[in-house]
Order: sequence, then C-alpha cells, then structure tokens
Amino acid sequence: MDLTPFKSIVDQYETIFFDAFGVLKNHQGFIPGIEKTFDYLDQKGINYFILTNDASRGPSELAQSYQDKGLKHITIDKIVSSGMLAREYLKFKVKSGTIAYLGTFRSAHYIETLGLDTLSIAHMDLTTQSKDVSALVFLDDEGFDWHHDLNKAVNLLRLTNIPAIVSNTDLSYPMDQKEVNIAVGGIANMVESVVDKKFIRFGKPDAQMFIFAHEHSVALGGTADKNKILMVGDTLTTDIIGGNKFGLDTMLVLTGNTLPKHAAMQIETSGIVPTYLSEDAVIN
Amino acid sequence: MDLTPFKSIVDQYETIFFDAFGVLKNHQGFIPGIEKTFDYLDQKGINYFILTNDASRGPSELAQSYQDKGLKHITIDKIVSSGMLAREYLKFKVKSGTIAYLGTFRSAHYIETLGLDTLSIAHMDLTTQSKDVSALVFLDDEGFDWHHDLNKAVNLLRLTNIPAIVSNTDLSYPMDQKEVNIAVGGIANMVESVVDKKFIRFGKPDAQMFIFAHEHSVALGGTADKNKILMVGDTLTTDIIGGNKFGLDTMLVLTGNTLPKHAAMQIETSGIVPTYLSEDAVIN
Amino acid sequence: MDLTPFKSIVDQYETIFFDAFGVLKNHQGFIPGIEKTFDYLDQKGINYFILTNDASRGPSELAQSYQDKGLKHITIDKIVSSGMLAREYLKFKVKSGTIAYLGTFRSAHYIETLGLDTLSIAHMDLTTQSKDVSALVFLDDEGFDWHHDLNKAVNLLRLTNIPAIVSNTDLSYPMDQKEVNIAVGGIANMVESVVDKKFIRFGKPDAQMFIFAHEHSVALGGTADKNKILMVGDTLTTDIIGGNKFGLDTMLVLTGNTLPKHAAMQIETSGIVPTYLSEDAVIN
Amino acid sequence: MDLTPFKSIVDQYETIFFDAFGVLKNHQGFIPGIEKTFDYLDQKGINYFILTNDASRGPSELAQSYQDKGLKHITIDKIVSSGMLAREYLKFKVKSGTIAYLGTFRSAHYIETLGLDTLSIAHMDLTTQSKDVSALVFLDDEGFDWHHDLNKAVNLLRLTNIPAIVSNTDLSYPMDQKEVNIAVGGIANMVESVVDKKFIRFGKPDAQMFIFAHEHSVALGGTADKNKILMVGDTLTTDIIGGNKFGLDTMLVLTGNTLPKHAAMQIETSGIVPTYLSEDAVIN
Repeated sequence: MDLTPFKSIVDQYETIFFDAFGVLKNHQGFIPGIEKTFDYLDQKGINYFILTNDASRGPSELAQSYQDKGLKHITIDKIVSSGMLAREYLKFKVKSGTIAYLGTFRSAHYIETLGLDTLSIAHMDLTTQSKDVSALVFLDDEGFDWHHDLNKAVNLLRLTNIPAIVSNTDLSYPMDQKEVNIAVGGIANMVESVVDKKFIRFGKPDAQMFIFAHEHSVALGGTADKNKILMVGDTLTTDIIGGNKFGLDTMLVLTGNTLPKHAAMQIETSGIVPTYLSEDAVIN
Repeated sequence: MDLTPFKSIVDQYETIFFDAFGVLKNHQGFIPGIEKTFDYLDQKGINYFILTNDASRGPSELAQSYQDKGLKHITIDKIVSSGMLAREYLKFKVKSGTIAYLGTFRSAHYIETLGLDTLSIAHMDLTTQSKDVSALVFLDDEGFDWHHDLNKAVNLLRLTNIPAIVSNTDLSYPMDQKEVNIAVGGIANMVESVVDKKFIRFGKPDAQMFIFAHEHSVALGGTADKNKILMVGDTLTTDIIGGNKFGLDTMLVLTGNTLPKHAAMQIETSGIVPTYLSEDAVIN
Repeated sequence: MDLTPFKSIVDQYETIFFDAFGVLKNHQGFIPGIEKTFDYLDQKGINYFILTNDASRGPSELAQSYQDKGLKHITIDKIVSSGMLAREYLKFKVKSGTIAYLGTFRSAHYIETLGLDTLSIAHMDLTTQSKDVSALVFLDDEGFDWHHDLNKAVNLLRLTNIPAIVSNTDLSYPMDQKEVNIAVGGIANMVESVVDKKFIRFGKPDAQMFIFAHEHSVALGGTADKNKILMVGDTLTTDIIGGNKFGLDTMLVLTGNTLPKHAAMQIETSGIVPTYLSEDAVIN
Repeated sequence: MDLTPFKSIVDQYETIFFDAFGVLKNHQGFIPGIEKTFDYLDQKGINYFILTNDASRGPSELAQSYQDKGLKHITIDKIVSSGMLAREYLKFKVKSGTIAYLGTFRSAHYIETLGLDTLSIAHMDLTTQSKDVSALVFLDDEGFDWHHDLNKAVNLLRLTNIPAIVSNTDLSYPMDQKEVNIAVGGIANMVESVVDKKFIRFGKPDAQMFIFAHEHSVALGGTADKNKILMVGDTLTTDIIGGNKFGLDTMLVLTGNTLPKHAAMQIETSGIVPTYLSEDAVIN
C-alpha cells in the first residue's frame, strides 16, 4: 500500500475525525507541526473533531489540556470522548440512586453534572451502602487501591444486580517511549470475567462512538454526508475498523501504535484496510 | 421481578421498537392476539417499528410476509433489518467491483438495488474471478453448498484483502417447537476464526442497529427523545442489552427465547436488567 | 439426576481424587463429618489425594494446614497442587537466570527449592534487572502492590521475551459466606490480554493436573486403572469436565460452588455430566 | 534468533517427537531428504514418534500411508494421533449405547474396534434414534452433508445431554500451495457456540497429547527423562507451546506454517519461544 500525504487528499472532505494519542500527540508531546494541520483546516473551512477513548475527565478539561499546551484550535466543542457516551447512558438509564465509580474525583465530577450522587468505591462501605447504588462506572485506572477496591467492586456486583458501565475500552495507554500502563478497560475486563456478568462498554471501535461524533458534528453545522468525512487514526483495530464500519473513509498514520515496518503485514493479516496510509497527519 | 402487563405502561411511550421472532410470532405463526396490539398503538398514535436480524431478503419482502399472513399493520416503513445496515455499509464503502455473497439470489437482489454487481460464491471461479471481488457478504444460510462454498469463501479471504461483512449476527434460528438451524452469523464466526481476520458485523445487540432504527423513526416524524421509546424483546443478550446500552427503556417478554421459569435467574446471573418483565406483548 | 450417597458407590473405587474447597472445607472450616470419610477410606484401603489449584505455598505447608486444623489424614504425599506443576515446568524449562514472581515470599520459597534465584516483582528494578529474568510466574494475589507491580509485570513482558507461567487457573476464591476475592488466575488473564502474548497455565480443568495426580498416585502404589479412580468435586467447569476428559468417573457434590437448586439446570445447559450427583462427600 | 541445524543438536536427545504436516511433508509430498533423517536416527539409536492431529483414520492406516509413499521407517508404533486419544476417552467413559459421529466410515471404523456401535449423523433419524446415542464424536470434515448434518448435530445436542468429543483441534488443513480446507476442529467450534455447551477436545497443543506420546514412548522402552526429548514442529501455537508446557526442548522448523520472513516477529509478539530455530528437520 503506497503512502499518501494527508495534504493531497484532505480537500475532498468537509469533516475530519482525529484520534488523539498517536495522531496529534505522543509521549513526548504534540507531533511536530501538527498545529499547522489545524491552521490549514481552519483556513479551508474543514471541520474537525477529536475522538478519544478517555473518561478520566470531562470534555472541557480535555480541551483545556490542549489549550494549555499551546494547541488553541482544540476547543470544548471539538471533543468527543467515550466518557461523554457513558454520561449520556447514565442520563437516560439511571434516574435515581448513587453512582459508584472507580476513578479519581476529577473523573466523577463530570458525572455529577447530571445531578446524580456519586460515591468512589474507595470510600464505600459495602455492607451499608451497596443497597443505594444504582450503577457502577469504570472511569479511570487511578484514584483507588487496586487490590482492595477491585475486590470491593467484584463483591458489589455479586451482591446487587446493577449495570456496570465501562467508559473507556482501551486495554493500555502509553507512559513513555518504552512503557505502558494498564487502562481502565483492561481492569474492567478482569472484573467482568470474575463476576461473569455482561458489562456495557463505550469507546472506539464501537459504532456508537462514531455515531455520537457524527450527530455532534451535524448539530454544529457539519456535513451529514458520510462520503465527506474522513477518520484519521493510528490503530487498525479501533480507529480504522470503527471508521470503516460506520461507512467513513479512513487514513492510517504511522506516528503511533502502528510501526512503519509492520503496517503492510498488519493490514494484510487483519483484513482491516484503511482507505489511505500516511506517514503522519501533518500538513506543512 | 414482578410481571408488568404491556398495556399498563405502553401509554408512557411515543415509539415502540419490537423484536420479531419470539415477540410477534413464533414457529406456529403470530402470537395469538398480537394484531390487537397494533390496533391499539394505531388508535393511540404510538409509532412502532420491527427491528430484526435478517438479511435473507429486503424490507419490502419482509413487510410483504407480514401482510400475506394477515398482519396489515406491518408495512415496509415499519421494517428495520440488519440487512439494511449491511446494504448501507456497502453503499458508502464499496464503490466498484463485484460483491461476492453467501446466500440466496433473493438475498442478493436487495444488494443489487445499489447498482453493484453481485456474484454468488456458489458460482464463482476462484482462480479467475477473485481479483474482481471487492467485498464478501454473509447474507443467508441457504443458497449455497456449505462444504464446497464455505471452503471457497475461506480461500477467497486468504487470497485477497477484502472486507467481510456479516449481515446477521444471530447464531441460530428456530425451525419448529424443538429444532433450530445454524444461522449465517454462526457460519460467519467459523469462517472468521479459520481465516483469522476481523469481520464487520451488523445486527442486534450492536448499537448501530438501534441508532439506525432511531434515525429512521425520527425521519418519519417520530420522537427523538429516548425516554419516550421502549424496546420490546424476548432475548436478554440481544434485544435488552442493546436497548439498554442505547439508553432506551426495555421490556422482556416470555413468549420466545426466555422461558418463564428461567427469567429471574437469567436476569440475576447475566446482570442484564430490563425495565419491565411481561408475559407477552399482547394488548387485549 | 438422582442423588447418590457417596458411601453407596465408594467401594467400587481404589483411588479417590478430591477437590479441596467446597468438598472438604468451606469458608467456615471443614465440612462437618468429613474426617469420617478419611477414616472409612483408610479402613477400606482406598487411596486418596487432594487436587487443588493453589500455588500460594508448597505441598508441605498445604498439608500442614490440614494437620493444624485437625485433619491428620492429609499428609504431604496426599497433596497435588497446581503449584507443583508450575515448579515442574520451571525445573525442566528454566535452567538459569532469575525467576521473577507475583506473590508472597512464602509462595516463592517453594520455587527456590529448585535452586533457582527468585525476585519479587515488587522489589525488581525494571531498568537494570529485567535482562537477568528468565521467566515470570504468577503465584499468589498477595505480596505485591497491584497497581504498581502489575504495570511493572506488563512492561517486563513487553521489554523481554520470557515465558509467563500461571500457577493457578482460578478466577476467584471465596472469602466468607458472601464475598470472594480475585485470584491470581484472574489477574494473569488481565496481564495476558494487555501484553497480547500466550501464557502457560497450570491447574484444573487442564488434563496435565489429572495426569500429574495419576502418576503421583501410581508411583505411591495406587492403581493405574482409570476405571478404578473417582474424581469428587463441587465445580462442573473444573473438577468434573477435567475428570471426565481424563477418563475418570466423576461425582459432583453440593457443598460448594454448585447450589442444590441450580445443579440439574447447570448440568443440562453446560453438557458437563458427572457420573454421580451427591449431597456431600461425607461417609458417616 | 540464529538458525541451528538439526544435525548439530540431535545427538543430545534420546527421543524425538515430530509433527507431520509442515515438518515431514507438505502439499507436494515428503520434504526432500527427510528419509535420511530417519536413517540417521535409526543408526544412532534415537527413538522417534509422529504426533499428529488426525482422526480421519486409525494409526495403522496412517502408518500405511507413509509406507505406501516410501517412508518405511514410519510403522504403526511410531504414530500418536489425536484420534487415539479420542478413542481412549470413549473406552473409559462410554460403556454402552451408540456413538454418533461426523466423518467418514473409515474414521468410524477405528472407533468400532472398541466394540461400540457407531452411527453416522448422516444416516441417523433424530426422532427415533437420538435416545440411544451416548456420545457425539467429530472425526473428519468429510463423509456427511455439512448443511443438513451439522444442523442435525446441533439438534441432537440440544435434545439430549451427551458429551461431544472433538478428536482434532485444528481449524484448517492445507490442500495445495495456495488453498486450505476448514478442518473438523473449526466445524466443532461452530457447533459448540451454537449449542452453548462445553465440548471435550483432543489434540496439540493440549498437554494430554504430549503425555500420551510420552507414555507410549516409555512403554516401548524410550527414555522417561523429559530433558532427553525434543519436539520438532512448524507451528508456534500448537507444537511449540505444547511441547514447552510439557517441559520438553522444542525446535521450530521453517518448512511449513511459519514463513522464514515472519518467524522472528511471530516469536517476539507471541512470547512462544522455541529452544531452537531450524531451516528444516533434514539430516543430510
């Protein structure tokens, strides 16, 4: 599969969906020159959104973190996160009771804006408080004691019959050039297999993430025509297969999970074929 | 969980999504009295749609089959099938080439309305024709020789790098009171594990099915408010978990897959909790 | 399936394999009267062995724990544990280097009797020490910081290409009448899915556990004839399917994982059929 | 990983276990020169056995097929097949009734030598005969009509509670240089997922296959010392991981499933590490 410079095809599209990690940034910070991509898109009147499996904080804080690091283009309305889908689920399906959660206070704060009570598993008394809990949400891999509180989560789900919501499907996330951390999606898989119940998951590659982004984009005046939308990502099994299934054109970039030397073989053996293969998402 | 008669709660909703098999009909034909449900809904101005994992024919033929058997309420605009999603995928993602398929001519006919060429795996010459094929679609468990043609499908997917689309996720379907048949979703899983590539699947419980139904309903003037939509189904792992995840209220009925004596235990052990449990979907 | 008292069939066998938890003991201690079973077996000259998924300590300490609580019949030669299989693997496959482990010092002590160096992940410096590590062993869910050290284990396996050995396949173990804890087998599954490599597992229902017990029994003068050996367990998916596959007669008892009210349905839906169903393993 | 000629290390071992397809032969016939390997082993007094996932016929016919093609060294006592394990299971666990099977008459003939009645699913009347069936065995992918008879097998397993035995775990087997066929192991996986019961499987990489070979070898006077046994195979996920887990040294050869250009990356990403990597198993 030949390399196609992003610039050579971007003008065919009216809206671009970007994955965040591995496309806009890596463990060292922003991909050099990525701000010029957004200058170009703004100048051409092409819409863009960031689709990210992240529930560690709300969209305003996610946008703020881009702003703080100097990427002024990424405002709150550009953010579509798996945490937003989890919050949406809770809004429709949980009308009362307390939302127990695994994560930091910061991650729970975004849930609280629904007007629901939240309670960290870390601070929960299983004997007296489990009867008031109406859902358990996996938000972040931090903010609790894994040993003590994951066992508590297992027993909460065995003693009650409440839904368990996983607000980030990723198994791991990069820490630095060499190391990764287990993500909350990996933790949730373990708890699910131990309690042997069905959890509800939000995040790429699930279609719901793309549909949510599409509705969000259309509501802000973007095109409804899927032929005019491109998904740009660094991972075949989330960004590319998800974008393909939703009917979008897709571009795999080589600045993240997919190593240049492995790209051709991974496309061949997985059967997940992007519309384009590109070195990066930079437009100089 | 107490039984809630459908009639006692139906007026709270503006739109009802029904599963077909096990809710409206079983192996003996329509559930007795089900036509009165639709008389009632029409009279009250409540919208309704049939969400079915079926790609063996197009929506007009599916509607016709209800009409032929006397359920005049079910017209083509009431049908939302997994086959419609698969066709939508092909419309956006496959612009040229031939669509190879496993299924009957009837199932392929609905794909051909896109203007794409189709070719049954049963009539395909692997050596000369595989280079022209741009996708493989699993449509129906009939219309081909399983031994000969499933091996041909495996080798088509090994020799090329085309997407494989599964247009019905069901593993089996009922034949009569005692027997079931392997469905095309079960066949596709076998082929996927043998070729070790990632297939694209359409059908409940995937969110895309519910979103497609929702958009279809809204386009026809139905409510956009998820709080005003109820999903009625007979299977926890498809209808109920899918409806729940999309944010709808859900009702499990006991006229199909879920036996009355097992319902409570299955809800408890699966953690998939419907909003209501009801004997049937009949409104007398 | 009718209930068969253990006493009514036990004389047909020359050797009995017992699962430990749920058969000999539960969260409250020994099943009342279980010592009489062993008096009876000793009197009749019937051999017996305890097959347990446990690598938290060596067989001498496991036997000692029975002795300390008053069951004098259970001596070290009666113990067959999954930890013994893991140690056997290391003996044959790891000739040099350091064995990194997740578990307590006590669990590692049994490995050290091989003459190999061991190093707790909790005390390991990834940068300087990972090059000396020749295997990673999951021994126990205690003895390390889950958050910090599981992430360290993930990165050790990403940075090196050493085998990962799981010495207990169980996902959870009971704490008291209501609560369970995540077992090291559940933890290992999470780490395996995050690093996406193949781990090597030891424990029921794997055939190797039964073969090891059989060889151990024969070496001590027991019968080699599988028709004369009975496996007694409380769990269909480990004890019973494993015993069946190895060619033994099997007895499911209702003093542990399988509730009396669910037994018939679980046998029916799983297709795992014990030779006998019995209330307990007590011989009065 | 450097290439190690087989000849340079073979003298360290007293017994060699060989995989068949991809090691001794490929779609074109025997690997050129492989007969010299067996001349050498015979001359040095090194034992050897063929471990093959095959239940399409008994060991005498398997050996005969080697003899007929000119490899006189491979006599019946050299053969260890997954079909032999399945037959062993039936010998111990099924004392009466009829064994239903999927496969050819030839494959069933080997089962009949146990003195049990067999009945091809293809000739079975589900209504009148299912009550006499005491087990279902998957023997071969030929000898029955896939569409008609796999549906019959599904319903047999739904209507009765008999064990289902899979006597070959392979998902596919090679037909010629380009094409493969779905194997009976792949078919069995589909039936298992449709009926949602637990099947019993025999074949590499399961430990039972290696233990059976080991016992067979020792019974014929071979060494019991695992350090003196080498497993030679072409597939990491069956031959190598299975041999490793059983405690043997292992050698991956590049004449079959593992392409030379992929070997290093597959070892790295799978974490399955052979003791040696070799071009082939030929000793000139």
